[in-house]
Parts: sequence; structure tokens; C-alpha cells
Amino acid sequence: MLPNMNWNYPTAIWFGHKRVNDIVNACKTLSINSPLIVTDEALSKLPIMDDLLTPLKVAGVKYTLFSDVQPNPTAQSVQKGVEVFKQNKNDGVIAFGGGSALDAGKTIAFMSSQSLDIWEFEDIGDNWSKADTSNIAKSIAIPTTAGTGSEVGRATVITDSKTHAKKIIFHPQMLPSIVILDPNLTYNLPKHITAWTGIDALVHSLEAYFSPLYHPMADGIALESIRLIKENLKIAYNEPHNEDARAYMLTAAMMGATAFQKGLGSVHSLAHTLGGLYNMPHGLANSIILPYAIYQNRSAIGEKASKICKYIDLSKPSVETLIKFILDLRKDLEIPNSLKEANIPFENEEKIGEVAFLDPSTGTNPLKMTSEKFTKLFKATYFGDFKILDE
Amino acid sequence: MLPNMNWNYPTAIWFGHKRVNDIVNACKTLSINSPLIVTDEALSKLPIMDDLLTPLKVAGVKYTLFSDVQPNPTAQSVQKGVEVFKQNKNDGVIAFGGGSALDAGKTIAFMSSQSLDIWEFEDIGDNWSKADTSNIAKSIAIPTTAGTGSEVGRATVITDSKTHAKKIIFHPQMLPSIVILDPNLTYNLPKHITAWTGIDALVHSLEAYFSPLYHPMADGIALESIRLIKENLKIAYNEPHNEDARAYMLTAAMMGATAFQKGLGSVHSLAHTLGGLYNMPHGLANSIILPYAIYQNRSAIGEKASKICKYIDLSKPSVETLIKFILDLRKDLEIPNSLKEANIPFENEEKIGEVAFLDPSTGTNPLKMTSEKFTKLFKATYFGDFKILDE
Repeated sequence: MLPNMNWNYPTAIWFGHKRVNDIVNACKTLSINSPLIVTDEALSKLPIMDDLLTPLKVAGVKYTLFSDVQPNPTAQSVQKGVEVFKQNKNDGVIAFGGGSALDAGKTIAFMSSQSLDIWEFEDIGDNWSKADTSNIAKSIAIPTTAGTGSEVGRATVITDSKTHAKKIIFHPQMLPSIVILDPNLTYNLPKHITAWTGIDALVHSLEAYFSPLYHPMADGIALESIRLIKENLKIAYNEPHNEDARAYMLTAAMMGATAFQKGLGSVHSLAHTLGGLYNMPHGLANSIILPYAIYQNRSAIGEKASKICKYIDLSKPSVETLIKFILDLRKDLEIPNSLKEANIPFENEEKIGEVAFLDPSTGTNPLKMTSEKFTKLFKATYFGDFKILDE
Repeated sequence: MLPNMNWNYPTAIWFGHKRVNDIVNACKTLSINSPLIVTDEALSKLPIMDDLLTPLKVAGVKYTLFSDVQPNPTAQSVQKGVEVFKQNKNDGVIAFGGGSALDAGKTIAFMSSQSLDIWEFEDIGDNWSKADTSNIAKSIAIPTTAGTGSEVGRATVITDSKTHAKKIIFHPQMLPSIVILDPNLTYNLPKHITAWTGIDALVHSLEAYFSPLYHPMADGIALESIRLIKENLKIAYNEPHNEDARAYMLTAAMMGATAFQKGLGSVHSLAHTLGGLYNMPHGLANSIILPYAIYQNRSAIGEKASKICKYIDLSKPSVETLIKFILDLRKDLEIPNSLKEANIPFENEEKIGEVAFLDPSTGTNPLKMTSEKFTKLFKATYFGDFKILDE
């Protein structure tokens, strides 16, 4: 079993089996005496909730539980959380769960001391500099899935429930002050969630590595994360209680999100679009789109794809080899091969292309994209047919 | 030419050609109105000093220059710097130079608000927690060599001038708040300094990658740094004004130091010992010891050495191939092959083995070391003879 480790970038990360038991120490370290625990409704009813609450109870820490968070958290939900935080005179946040709970928790901590409206902090230009930084509450993030990596992010995705638009809220101080990575919390994930979130992490690392920006630290982190996923995702899927595989996957997911500060690409542009239209789970959308997007980008990523193949020990390094590896992995994880198989309708292909093109992730795609190219990518992904991309 | 980039781990890093011109912006960002500039005596007389001072003068920033720093900075020098800081009511530090200037600057910023003696913060146990954190001055670090990586470190090496002992001073808040990486500042380094510091960075990344601790982010950063050094150190050595090679080397050096939070190994243990005894330049000592230490460790690092070879495109991946690559590189950089060639005396070999064994870097060496093994490593390095390690 891997030993406990403390890492200190991109933030303080406390890694280890049953490390959630260190929650009281984490609160002490940050001088949090009365935390607001933010989690989602479903999770709050599961036994792993006790893994977090028991050590707090034993130590007599006075906490407040806020579980009114749905998948794709809304500004209303954040507002409610802020009110609960103020009513209970909480002085810090513990965000516990998947991406939605972590995003909600981070945003509640940030908004607890702001007088401006949440949309004033949408990630456009230097909006973030409008924040009052005198009293931003600190947060501790504890992921229970291995995919999103929101625990090491400085941004969150919040939905405007009036317009249904998903907006990115950004502030450097939204980065959690301590992250606890406890693989045991992921043992009981449903199998398909292990698969989808695992490929989500792989997409983060691949798109970051292929991004044309210069950020060699991100390159290295992405590369090592890809290796960890290649060697462990199938094991975690088939043996949910495999200690090391779960630990490696949780680490790899955190690394994928650290790496994607270098940028993402067309997989995310299209996945965001399908998520907005059909509320399609983000990891599933990414998983289906990935091989087609790599194929479409092949003229721009040959050398980098070969480097990845060499490092992760795939013989005959090439883009084609990398795509074959992904297709095989996806099959083993019982992930659909096409959007059709995932019951997404075939409609609005031109509109989808236009919306995907405008997604912020498009800017760092290796190949210069157009709306038309995104429409083609959507079609190829819909029918599961690479040939459409050659047309 | 590589474009300007801002990275935000392990701290805020502003990378780019002539990026030192952003110094005024960096001071503003950190609310530093009256910086103390800490640099070493030799550097303060060179033209590149103006690269830093001119933008400050143009903007009318009131600064104080403190250049009473010698190689291997002493506690006395730090004390003087703290006095100057207080006298001039400075409110932050700009550390400008090689490892010595950066270490002195970081330590002066930290000590400016401490009431305890500097040695109370030696890196032993949780000494660092004794610090008064209410008012630690912020620092901006600007390296002028590509090797030490002190700009991203949370520790410094300070010499006790009474006992000549080098001690590590540690506090998490000694990490500079902003790092400026400007390759242009390294164009006029003497050739041998480019060589020694470049191999120093390579040693950081190799020893970190070989360290048995679990820190996969450090592994990835180390690996990518090794690739950058392989592809650029010779070019930087032969074409000192090559923009990209200098940029890659400065980045790689920062990454090496980020990676070695995972641990170092026997190269550093022996280099620290020789540095203490003969004031041997650290980069030179590391450069000479490296291949012998890898050879001595070969039974413990075979798989990792092969992974490195594959990623950096060396055919026939193996420890032997990695050693050959290092020997060839060293030859091209005109680095001596042995301690004898570097005019180090052959004496005290048993004592040297004992002191090296006790060095903090010994704990993360892949092979379990003993004083006797260090004595053998010293002998092999002295005579430039691998066979001594087979005895």
C-alpha cells in the first residue's frame, strides 16, 4: 500500500489511505473552528459521509452540514449555502464529493465575504480583481471521485438557473488551501462512474499535453498522469477495492486538472456543448468524443503522440497506436462507441458546431478549428465513424 | 522565440524574454512600495544589474540596494540585510542573482519580522512552526543562472561563519511570491558556469526521479526537465545568445528544483561534503560525481533509467545508456572527468564517507547507502574509475 505523503503544489495536498481521518488536523492548521460542510444530496445519505463526520464528532468540532447541492450547481444553491454559512457563523468550508459538490463548496467559501453579485466574477478579463480579498474563507477539498480534479482548480462551473447557461467563476483564492486525497473514499463508486471519470482524467491530461502553449511543468505532470491511468484504470474498474489502483487513479485525476492550466481542446468544447444541450454527463461525453478528436487533430500532434506512446510503453509509437489504445481501453470499460449508442439525438449539427467553436477550450486545440470542423467531429462521434473526418 | 507565459505553481511564475521589465508590476501586485534589492557583490557591478534597476528608476520606485552577499551567504550577512531592511523601512525583497543571492534575499525577507535567532529555524522537526507569521515580508526572486532553482524553494542554505557549518533554514512562507524567469539575464554567464549549473539542474531532476518516495507530479516535472536539458544544454553552452536554448534551460532548472521536493540522493550527499571541505562549487562537484553515483545505484534504478531513455529518445534504453549519455554530455561541456582532474586532494576518504552518509539527501537514495559505500563512491569519483565500485 502506498504510504501517506504531503505534497505542496499546486496547493497543500495530503495523500493517503484513510487520510480523511486527518480532517480535524486540517481544520486546526487553517484555524477553522466551525466548518460548513458542503456536499451533494445523494452523497449525504451514503455511508462514506460518516468517514468525514465521525472524526469531527469525536473531536467535538462544531460543524454545519449543507447538502442542498445538485449536479451542476446553481447560483441559487451557492446563495443558500452562503446564507447558511453566515447564519451559523462558520469560518471555513469543507467541500466533500464529486465535481459539483467541490465547485459549490469552493464558491460558497469565496462568496461568503463578497458584496458583489456572483456573475461579476465570471472568468472574463480581470473580473477576478474586483473581489474583496480581505476575508475570503478558506476551504478544504476532499474528492470522492477520481476525475474532475476540481480540488486543485481556481475556478468553478456554476449554472445560471434562469438562462441555463454554465459560467466559469474564477478567483486565485478559490484554490482550496488543503486537499485531502483519500483513495478509500472512491472504493464504492458505481462502476460506470469509475470508467467515465477515469477517462475524463485521461482527456484532461491528453488535451493539456497536446495544447500548443509553453508550460513544460504541465507537460510533465500530464505525461506521468497518462502513464498512471494506462496502468491503473482497468484495474480500478475491475477490482474496485484495489488499494493501489484507486490511489494511483485519484492522484492521476488531480494531476490531470493541474496540467490543464495549459489548456484543453476540442474534446472539451464539444462535451461542454452536449452537456448544456442534453445534460449529458461530462465524463461520458468526453469518453465518447476522445478518439475522434485525436484522429481529427492527427496532423498536428504526431510527434507528441509518439512521445506519449514511448513513455507509456506502446509499441510502434504513432497517433494511430494511441487511438487504438484508447479504443481498446474504452471497450474494456464498457463505454459506448458513439453518441448514437448513448441515445443522444442527431439534430442541430450545425448549431452544435457553432456553439462548440465558441467554447473557451477551442483556443488551445492543436488544429485550428472552425464551426464546420466541429460539425464534422460531432457527426463522426455520433455515428462512431472515423471516415467522416476524412471527407 | 517563446512567448511570455504566467504559471501558477509551485508559485506565481512570470516567464519570458526581457520579462524583468515587469518588475514594477510585480511590486505593485504584491503591494511592495519600497523593495530591498538583495544581490551579490560581483553581480552588483555587472551591466545586467541595470536590467533590473532601470525599470524601477523609470517608474520612480524607491528601492534600497544591498549587495553585501558572498557566495555561500552567512548568518551575519543576513543579519546585516535585515538591519538595512529595517533602517530603510523596506516592505519587501527583490532577490536577484544566483543561488547565494536568492537564498540571502529569501532569508532576509523571512527574518525581517522574526524575534527568534536564525538558527531556531534550522530545518529540523517542526522548527518552522515557531515562526511569527503575522508580518513576513514578501519576496520576488529573479534568477540569473539556470541551475539552483532556489527561486521555487521554501528553504535556504545559510553558513554559520563561526563553525563553517552550512545549515538549512526552512519556512513554507520563504517561497517567493512571484518568480520572474527572464532568459536574457543568463546570456552572459561564463561558459563554465552555464555547464556546471546546467548539470546541477540535471542532477536535481535525475535524483528526484530516482527517489523512491511517491510523488508522481515531481516525477513528471523531473522527466520533462531532463528532456529539456538533453535538447538544450549543449546549445546554450555553444551559443550563449540562443534565445530558446536559454529559455528552456532556465525553465528546466526551475523544474529540477520543484521536482526535488521528492528527495535527492548520493550525488548531493557527497557534493555537500566536498563543498564544506574544499569550498568546491556545488554544480562542479555534482557534475563530476553524477555518473559514478548512477553506476553505484544501477541495481536499484534499472526500470526508471530505461523509462527516461525512452522518453528522451536514447536508443537501447538502460542504465548503461543513460551513463554513456551523461559522460558524452560532460565531455562536450568540458567538465573534468574526476576529482583528481579538478585538483581536489585525495585524503580523509573514510571521514568523507561518514559525513556524506549523514547528509539529509542520503535518505532518499535508491540504493541503501553506508559510510563505506560513500567512501567507495568518493574513491571512484576521485580516480574517475567505475571499476572501484565493483570491488
